[in-house]
Amino acid sequence: MDRLLIRNCAVLIVPETGECRVDENQDIHIADGAILAIVPTGTNPQLPNPQQPTLHGPDSQQPTPHKPTEHEHASQQATPHDPAPPQPALGDRASSDFEVIDGTGLLAVPGLTNSHTHSPMVMMRGAAEDVSIDDWFNQKIWPMELNLTPERVRVGARLACAEMLLAGVTTFVDHYFHADQIAEAALETGIRADLAPTFFSSTGPDGREAAFDAARQIRALGNQSANGRPPRITASLGPHAPYTVTDEDLARTAEVARAEGFRIHLHAAETLDQTRSSKNRLGATPIEVLDRTGVLEAGALIAHGCGILDEDLPRLERHADRTAVATCPKVYLKLAMDSTTPIRQLQSASIPVGIGTDGAAVHNTLDVWESLRLVALTQKQREQQAEWMPLSDTLRLATRGGATAANLPILTGALEPGRRADITLLDLSAPHNQPLHNPLAALVYSTRPSDVVHVLVDGHQVVRNRTLTTSNLPNLLAEARDLAHTLTTLTQEGAIQHYAP
Amino acid sequence: MDRLLIRNCAVLIVPETGECRVDENQDIHIADGAILAIVPTGTNPQLPNPQQPTLHGPDSQQPTPHKPTEHEHASQQATPHDPAPPQPALGDRASSDFEVIDGTGLLAVPGLTNSHTHSPMVMMRGAAEDVSIDDWFNQKIWPMELNLTPERVRVGARLACAEMLLAGVTTFVDHYFHADQIAEAALETGIRADLAPTFFSSTGPDGREAAFDAARQIRALGNQSANGRPPRITASLGPHAPYTVTDEDLARTAEVARAEGFRIHLHAAETLDQTRSSKNRLGATPIEVLDRTGVLEAGALIAHGCGILDEDLPRLERHADRTAVATCPKVYLKLAMDSTTPIRQLQSASIPVGIGTDGAAVHNTLDVWESLRLVALTQKQREQQAEWMPLSDTLRLATRGGATAANLPILTGALEPGRRADITLLDLSAPHNQPLHNPLAALVYSTRPSDVVHVLVDGHQVVRNRTLTTSNLPNLLAEARDLAHTLTTLTQEGAIQHYAP
Repeated sequence: MDRLLIRNCAVLIVPETGECRVDENQDIHIADGAILAIVPTGTNPQLPNPQQPTLHGPDSQQPTPHKPTEHEHASQQATPHDPAPPQPALGDRASSDFEVIDGTGLLAVPGLTNSHTHSPMVMMRGAAEDVSIDDWFNQKIWPMELNLTPERVRVGARLACAEMLLAGVTTFVDHYFHADQIAEAALETGIRADLAPTFFSSTGPDGREAAFDAARQIRALGNQSANGRPPRITASLGPHAPYTVTDEDLARTAEVARAEGFRIHLHAAETLDQTRSSKNRLGATPIEVLDRTGVLEAGALIAHGCGILDEDLPRLERHADRTAVATCPKVYLKLAMDSTTPIRQLQSASIPVGIGTDGAAVHNTLDVWESLRLVALTQKQREQQAEWMPLSDTLRLATRGGATAANLPILTGALEPGRRADITLLDLSAPHNQPLHNPLAALVYSTRPSDVVHVLVDGHQVVRNRTLTTSNLPNLLAEARDLAHTLTTLTQEGAIQHYAP
Repeated sequence: MDRLLIRNCAVLIVPETGECRVDENQDIHIADGAILAIVPTGTNPQLPNPQQPTLHGPDSQQPTPHKPTEHEHASQQATPHDPAPPQPALGDRASSDFEVIDGTGLLAVPGLTNSHTHSPMVMMRGAAEDVSIDDWFNQKIWPMELNLTPERVRVGARLACAEMLLAGVTTFVDHYFHADQIAEAALETGIRADLAPTFFSSTGPDGREAAFDAARQIRALGNQSANGRPPRITASLGPHAPYTVTDEDLARTAEVARAEGFRIHLHAAETLDQTRSSKNRLGATPIEVLDRTGVLEAGALIAHGCGILDEDLPRLERHADRTAVATCPKVYLKLAMDSTTPIRQLQSASIPVGIGTDGAAVHNTLDVWESLRLVALTQKQREQQAEWMPLSDTLRLATRGGATAANLPILTGALEPGRRADITLLDLSAPHNQPLHNPLAALVYSTRPSDVVHVLVDGHQVVRNRTLTTSNLPNLLAEARDLAHTLTTLTQEGAIQHYAP
């Protein structure tokens, strides 16, 4: 087994319902990228598979990873309460037998999920400010996107992955063009990602089918690179939105999704205004369109949903086992949109909600700490109730909700035996978090990306002491700077699409 | 002269109106705590007083500070356009003659002002979460404040000063009890502060007069420690609010303020609900109360003002030369308040607005970057117009607006010859700010306190390479941790006041 131990950290426990808590002085045992056990520091985890830690030997520095089968994986999903007999104490030997991360003074939290983004748009960060939503699309972003090339997308995605990993974001759910390039960037940098190749109906059936093929290829790449583990790169189908994709194309998307087991990630009901316009134009709300075209039945991640009406809730609820909504509130404020995601109503209909940043061309960061804070703040405002969207619920949206939005509900999103070891270790000792009366309050209202010290994805340490281990950050920044102007230039006539929802 | 040079930085220029800009490759020359000149890197500033930099000599490592008189100060407030003849080039000799900070790759911005806070409340950070405004006051904060002692206030204020300085906040405008202790903490840590000793009418005339005496003592302390420079510590009078202070006490406050040249810092019209209640109870809006009691005429910094009505604007406008409003939007969201500060309307009435955090018992941080971002976002939302509250206006509120809120309108808030050298140097090269298409967008929407590298207050470097130079941070954190529980305990019966506006 490929073993790792995070020794003597505090651990954020996010239950499925109820209050979150922090358990102090815990050891997190990790094997083959999964959490094996979380036990009080120094105690012996009851291992379901009694493999011994590798003893000292010529190969102990660089052990060959064991490739478990699917069956072996399942068998490792045990809990500390497993009835297997106690194993010999790992004790001090651990530090020489396998890698140990000293967690003393650190808080382990589930790696955050960015539940909706367009990662390569970091290349346009700050290039479309103080404009209306119409101008943002029609005067800035969609004309700029005429400049997209595979290389520019890849360079942007690399920068985005670096920004997210350094901030403790271990999974992102992406929706963009040239998604194969984003997959490569995610593989290189070590982050987990679900990628939906975007298409508009304006590109015709060929464009649509090419996007489906891109999803198939990304899925294949993810499976090939998985080495018997659950793949770190997965794919969804990515129609842009009901206002840019015809009902016929949405129905075709649903058909492919059902036939091949894809989930569909798209924008819908982004504003109340869009919902009104949809009713006028099509006689149906955007959610109704998703329902009648089979998208909801196939399974959908709906970005934004600020225009979801009460009448839409029963439709969503019927597919609650395969539907999620991603909310990105900084964007709704910045574009002066007419509402925010109705999270309380969605939750009452059992619809999972994740938290995202949207693209950095509007959100300016890929900082999910900022997003989750704004979710709590703007939901209190929306409901005019300061008691609503309490700390534990906010953290649950950013962790378990994110895992569901990423279509990984049982693999990530919580620190529990059996889940993948996607773990962010925070140092909350800086002045802005002190004194620490309530770590949950710190996580929601004062934690910053600079508090992130170490990050693991799939048990691999991708950030060590605030430094990326997988990429040369200066090179990656230099590449992005060199190409940035090529993406924001408006010298080409036209746009990839026109915004008129 | 006590000289300092920041060499080869970019400089944020915030004009009184219009677009901000960034000038690249500038040298900032500083003498006796003031900005002497800002000139292209390596060019020779035209110095109004032709003192030469100290030559090498036995004392050059620790020059005795020259103590200029008030007259000399005035004479140093010259601009690069001063008609004085050119001086010999400082050239390479500078680095050996006086301290040089290498600004290469850094952006100098005016030190931010926290325009309204209760700094020692960092001791209650995270101790009152997910509660209504009524419960926040009556069940949490005002019972906890029975525990206040001078020592606890001082320890809290030290931590607050550290947090602010490390985030590039160079001035704070405070309103709290035991304000003499806060003055000492500000003096020690090197930050600039205006301090208003808080009182309620419930403490009787003795309490009121004691608060005035505290303001007089703080003013005296500030003057004594000024060494001929403009004092770094100033005082205001601090009645709590029109709903906790009688008209008679407000009138007495105005009388003392006028007689002794104090400004008045108080809470007023915090919500629309308070304004309605004031009209019902007193037949007047809170602003009308401030007008009829002479507070506006004496000069006031009004915290929040979310309940300011259009009918209040002419009253405020008549005193616009001595009135400012401080806005703290994170608090309005978090407490689910019914509105935010009507900045557009205040600006149309020429009322200056600054940006604050309020106390960390509700805001959880003293991060003015976070506050200024939320000002831009929530003002766009309020006005339902994404073009409103553009980048330059937001930065102007956080700098020039803050200086006015601090009652220092010509001393701080801009990087211009003659102003005090309160300067924050930022490194915008991290992934979350890159590529840097627009530094103004970065400052408003992606900059974090961790981007702050060096901070100067009054020409003294208080943060060097992200480290406080004036305090031992670990000691200061340990003191705060040791005392934190003594402030949040609810074992004493009662409260310092009851919230029923």
